[in-house]
Amino acid sequence: MDKINIAEKLALFSDYWNPRVVAELNGQHVKLAKLKGDFVWHKHDHEDELFYVISGELKIEFRDKAVCLKPGEMLAIPKGVEHRPVAEEEVCVMLFEPVSTINTGDAGGELTRTDLDIL
Amino acid sequence: MDKINIAEKLALFSDYWNPRVVAELNGQHVKLAKLKGDFVWHKHDHEDELFYVISGELKIEFRDKAVCLKPGEMLAIPKGVEHRPVAEEEVCVMLFEPVSTINTGDAGGELTRTDLDIL
Repeated sequence: MDKINIAEKLALFSDYWNPRVVAELNGQHVKLAKLKGDFVWHKHDHEDELFYVISGELKIEFRDKAVCLKPGEMLAIPKGVEHRPVAEEEVCVMLFEPVSTINTGDAGGELTRTDLDIL
Repeated sequence: MDKINIAEKLALFSDYWNPRVVAELNGQHVKLAKLKGDFVWHKHDHEDELFYVISGELKIEFRDKAVCLKPGEMLAIPKGVEHRPVAEEEVCVMLFEPVSTINTGDAGGELTRTDLDIL
């Protein structure tokens, strides 16, 4: 039961779209990720997903609108809702979602990450 | 599906030890709370609990040690572990925990809050 320093954990990796797990509780993971560029359109059929921006600006596109998140802002995306994260410059985010959540959801493809590292 | 600005939500209340719900997903609540002073010793028999410090310094006492959290630091407390949050000065925290979680856990008493406001 050690404390988790977000900045220290973020300093341990530099690759994009590859979430790391920093805590697990109640069947949920707390993850950190660095994002840059356009992700793939996808949805999670069984999991709601929360993005909390630590640094940078993250745009999350939906089929009918877009939401821009700055540091200290978060968005909960209900299961089944198609979305695409877009980061013009590097963004650091914290994610809170069920252990079962796969980053690319139903889309699959080369950006899919499983067996995530635990920091 | 609106974004949540943590600072704006925190500006909406000033009372201590009275968490507000800002998001619900996957049976979990994201809560914000302002803390000052000593809370009661308690444990949650069925819920792990996560404290993430937004501002201030939070000490979480355990029966055999204490953990001090600064802004940008978090701690996950497993179910069943007795703890007591202590804030010498005002602390703002974000909590991730199951919807069923009661702030005072098994201890009850006058600091117990149920039917939390949703901001």
